[in-house]
Amino acid sequence: MPNRQIQLMQNARSQASFHSQELTNIIYGGATAVQSRREEFSRIEKVLGRSDTRKLPEIYWESGRTEQYVDGLQWGAATFRERLKRGNSLFDYVSPHLWMNNASPFGLHFLMFTPALKLLASPEQLEYWLPLAESGRIIGTYCQTELGHGTFVRGLETTATFDETTDEFVVHSPTTSSTKFWPGGLGYSASHAIVMARLVIKSKDYGMHPFMVQLRSLEDYTPTPGIELGDIGLKLGHNTADNGYAVFTHLRIPRTQLLMRSNQVLRDGTYIRGPNDKLAYSTMLFARKVFIVHIYLQLAQAATIAIRYSVVREQGNVAFNVAENTEMPIIAFKLQQYRLFTLMARAFALHFAGVHVSALYEGMLEGQKSGDENELAPVHALLAGMKAYSTQVTADGAEDARKCCGGHGYLAMSGFGQLVPTATAIATLEGENFVMYQQTARFLVKCLARPEQHCTTEYLRSPGKFAFSTLAPDADFLHANVQLEMFRHRSARLAVKCAEALSTSQKRDGLSSAQAWNKHMLSLIALARAHTETFVLAAFVDAVQGIKDDAVRAVLQRLCSLFALSSIDGPNGAEFFADGYIAASHLKHIRATIEDLLQALLPDAVALTDAWDFTDTCLASALGCADGDVYERIMEWTRQVPLNVEARKMGGVFRPGFEEHIKPILRGKL
Amino acid sequence: MPNRQIQLMQNARSQASFHSQELTNIIYGGATAVQSRREEFSRIEKVLGRSDTRKLPEIYWESGRTEQYVDGLQWGAATFRERLKRGNSLFDYVSPHLWMNNASPFGLHFLMFTPALKLLASPEQLEYWLPLAESGRIIGTYCQTELGHGTFVRGLETTATFDETTDEFVVHSPTTSSTKFWPGGLGYSASHAIVMARLVIKSKDYGMHPFMVQLRSLEDYTPTPGIELGDIGLKLGHNTADNGYAVFTHLRIPRTQLLMRSNQVLRDGTYIRGPNDKLAYSTMLFARKVFIVHIYLQLAQAATIAIRYSVVREQGNVAFNVAENTEMPIIAFKLQQYRLFTLMARAFALHFAGVHVSALYEGMLEGQKSGDENELAPVHALLAGMKAYSTQVTADGAEDARKCCGGHGYLAMSGFGQLVPTATAIATLEGENFVMYQQTARFLVKCLARPEQHCTTEYLRSPGKFAFSTLAPDADFLHANVQLEMFRHRSARLAVKCAEALSTSQKRDGLSSAQAWNKHMLSLIALARAHTETFVLAAFVDAVQGIKDDAVRAVLQRLCSLFALSSIDGPNGAEFFADGYIAASHLKHIRATIEDLLQALLPDAVALTDAWDFTDTCLASALGCADGDVYERIMEWTRQVPLNVEARKMGGVFRPGFEEHIKPILRGKL
Repeated sequence: MPNRQIQLMQNARSQASFHSQELTNIIYGGATAVQSRREEFSRIEKVLGRSDTRKLPEIYWESGRTEQYVDGLQWGAATFRERLKRGNSLFDYVSPHLWMNNASPFGLHFLMFTPALKLLASPEQLEYWLPLAESGRIIGTYCQTELGHGTFVRGLETTATFDETTDEFVVHSPTTSSTKFWPGGLGYSASHAIVMARLVIKSKDYGMHPFMVQLRSLEDYTPTPGIELGDIGLKLGHNTADNGYAVFTHLRIPRTQLLMRSNQVLRDGTYIRGPNDKLAYSTMLFARKVFIVHIYLQLAQAATIAIRYSVVREQGNVAFNVAENTEMPIIAFKLQQYRLFTLMARAFALHFAGVHVSALYEGMLEGQKSGDENELAPVHALLAGMKAYSTQVTADGAEDARKCCGGHGYLAMSGFGQLVPTATAIATLEGENFVMYQQTARFLVKCLARPEQHCTTEYLRSPGKFAFSTLAPDADFLHANVQLEMFRHRSARLAVKCAEALSTSQKRDGLSSAQAWNKHMLSLIALARAHTETFVLAAFVDAVQGIKDDAVRAVLQRLCSLFALSSIDGPNGAEFFADGYIAASHLKHIRATIEDLLQALLPDAVALTDAWDFTDTCLASALGCADGDVYERIMEWTRQVPLNVEARKMGGVFRPGFEEHIKPILRGKL
Repeated sequence: MPNRQIQLMQNARSQASFHSQELTNIIYGGATAVQSRREEFSRIEKVLGRSDTRKLPEIYWESGRTEQYVDGLQWGAATFRERLKRGNSLFDYVSPHLWMNNASPFGLHFLMFTPALKLLASPEQLEYWLPLAESGRIIGTYCQTELGHGTFVRGLETTATFDETTDEFVVHSPTTSSTKFWPGGLGYSASHAIVMARLVIKSKDYGMHPFMVQLRSLEDYTPTPGIELGDIGLKLGHNTADNGYAVFTHLRIPRTQLLMRSNQVLRDGTYIRGPNDKLAYSTMLFARKVFIVHIYLQLAQAATIAIRYSVVREQGNVAFNVAENTEMPIIAFKLQQYRLFTLMARAFALHFAGVHVSALYEGMLEGQKSGDENELAPVHALLAGMKAYSTQVTADGAEDARKCCGGHGYLAMSGFGQLVPTATAIATLEGENFVMYQQTARFLVKCLARPEQHCTTEYLRSPGKFAFSTLAPDADFLHANVQLEMFRHRSARLAVKCAEALSTSQKRDGLSSAQAWNKHMLSLIALARAHTETFVLAAFVDAVQGIKDDAVRAVLQRLCSLFALSSIDGPNGAEFFADGYIAASHLKHIRATIEDLLQALLPDAVALTDAWDFTDTCLASALGCADGDVYERIMEWTRQVPLNVEARKMGGVFRPGFEEHIKPILRGKL
């Protein structure tokens, strides 16, 4: 007979109002895609020897710096091979644990190196380098950030000085702060890098340009003379990748390794400025899109673990059982339901928003091919905002999911040990979120001054209509239009206020535009966040309305409403109330509606986790396994912890620690 | 000549409006205390060989599970010895890194084992065990939580069955979920434990009782037959401690090892119920007080690191430099100032609130000695709320400080690698925060029904006076009374609303009191949080008003105002607006006041970090060192990372990784 936890899980799973498989098909784009996804996971898990979920996953063994890197090499090489063999792969951008694949030592090869090559190399250069990259005969990374310089590209210090006598560039790190620092795989894994450096010809500085640099001998991987390479040490997460540093000491490379699709340097040192100077930055756009389209999977994983655990974890609580000893699954608690289902709702919101972002991004690329650059500014603004929003919601949500699991959520084997810091990393790298939101805000403020006809900002064409609207006293908060109207009201009002404030500061108070921006930065970020959230809700509403399966649509509608309403009555909700748009009577109504939604979602909790179709191996969580057998699995895994295995060999004692540190204390040798 | 970063730091430090040493004296209780504190740190840092801050701290070496435990043994044994030699020590409850000392393998010895012994042992038992414990001839831990049971003590399953024939108890773990799980030091470090188990006599279950159990032989530390012991594996933090598990298989202990200060079992199995059944829980109260009084140091550390880094980290930003390449320290940005100074303000708020909590706790103990139990309920409620509030503010704040440091904050050597998860741990262990807040809420709801005369709840004696008050249109938001009135308005209003809602749900809707509580749990938690924050503000205001040094008082007054006003205009601020108490015109005024405060605090930023008097060794942060020499230190430390040291020996290549994983890919062997 199955034990109590397994029974609780079976029971919870049996209550679903819809077929989880139907939803799986919607998430991953059809039954065929789901099938091939499963096969791909199964193949990789087998190659890695990780199919047996009764074995303690290796990531929870010792996890020293070097051990984690070796683990990364192992799965990174496996997914890299999968890609090379099959042309494309799920694992291009996500790892077998569904972390972002830049946690692989080879992750930047397809995420940044190859795309940058395509954008930056001249046709001849591309002809030479691309086949090498695509066949894995070279392994690349992208090298921009320096120890002392991040977001502000113009501050970078590395120089590439043209030496006309030898027809070479001399790449050099003139200061400690110019050390290239952070690129994934730069430590010990990459053979080549596209290095951003200031192009200098005859003492004239032409600014940042991309150079192809061979970092290591393809024979034995020793560093190219003139380059010091190394790992940047332990990080809060992403330790499976060897983010590295590089110091260049008068390294000479051929002139032809300046990537010259746009700007060129001729043999005699003549500089020819190409048509588009901004190409180098576009690599970032692609990476951002990839983050947006995949990051929410980590929130979905976190929510899956927390919901499944909450179904089998029992806890008597004084609130329920004043006189009894019986306990109940913690999912019975309203607060737990609120937190868990809100997280699940956000995961779906980000999923559908990501699909929409992807379509807009592809549309922009299509347009650019025929010379139409109109989509560039709005899509750039959208990607910036969505990168900030999706990573923030994911990182905060994964952390909240961890807290929902109480003490055991703090075990590395809960899965959160890797999930939370990985999500957090993406919130910081390739554009810190506050910087991202400001890019969105800048576009929005421009939009107000000169309305653009873009689907994402249409409601800002006559912002007053939304900004000064009122909410009907008897508004139906389950109605998507009401929800959208509230969100549009908030962002339109913030937009109008920001524009006014900036203008007043400049015209009345005589501030420069930069000073005015700095003064109102908080409000501008709030605006960008509100606008992005409005986009997300609209995408969610749209997607749900198009779903044909009645049962699936009903449950997603509930999640969509919960997403909207919990955003109003949540930590970022103050702006809904600040102008009295939502009154105390509305709030009461909203809270009652939320309560009904939680009640309705309860039977579908486990089916929603199943819909994501995560394998137990990919979750790598003793708390989130599909069968619910939490306690047995924790003990099985715990007994396999190497410290315990070693101690058992020593008679159950950790002898080195006892002899050196404990025994002297016990014997009074202080 | 000092390099640029050192110059920036010197320059920032020189602008202070007050003597940081004066504030240091206030924080630590006078110049003598400061001196002895410094000596103690210097002694321990010397013993551990960690005085040279140009050496990569060992915690950033490899950090595998076993290595971290060995590191914990090393500093844990050093601080344990300091305590044993000197009778008491700073390091009783905090580590040399100012983490909570339950991150030491021996941390629970003084935090829980000894206090529990004093509370639970009979005088004869105490006479035997206490000298052993106080001299370190035994090393103890406290063993309550089980794999399947946490907060809800009555759910625990471990049994201790009396065997009259041999005069022994048989301690047993009947199920997997009854495995004792989590206690610090239980894995391999403790020799003894106070184990909570159900006392069973002749098949009758008398509930939880405390038993003294010898876990290991004092000769060679092999586990006592009948006990399986082990480490619970990697955690998100606190890995220097061996939180462990224990499975008991019919372990026999003498009857006299039931700790019998209160309840007793006689030779013939007669059970004698003692006067106070709740003693066992009191150990928790002491531990909570210790957490509250020390946890904010981690926030102060985090704020110190982030502020110092922000003074030397330069970043050009489009908002400032549209046409220039010059960069500026990131502390110049308003948003950065807002985040950093708010964190610093919170650290001071928690410090002064902790001092007040400590005094109330001592007062309660004094009272109890003379049989006065009146303080127990209010102090219990205060400790619960403060434990939740202080750990939450610290954990969230430490994480925000990390984000303020951008990419480099993600390096383990930033210091945040240990700081954030350590703070997070305390937010979960010994009482999860949502559970804690509910304990406070329960007391507050009772207070409303039957007003108690306690200093912490006095404003709730006539809650209507505060709940239905209005805020003057021209309120002076720098005035402490105005600030306090706003906070009291919010909590009184929430209290009145909660009481009404509970009553309506029961009387009108026929819910049981437990159901009503579950229904309104979110509001009740909001109430508890608001009330606790009101206590914190009051304590901060009081403490500041008593400071004699004019310059110090002025800067702390600014921080106090910033604490109050940023709490209103922050993520938890919606409740200030929900009833229109604070209008849009107020908000504008509040924001302008905040801006003035930031401006005024800017010159004191570094002096405020200096006032905490953290040594560079204790911060263990490449970003937060006092001299500001960030980039040189990062590179010095990075080159000492063992992976790099090893690779240098192999000619700059990580050979095992290259041969096994990289070479086959380069050679096309897929």
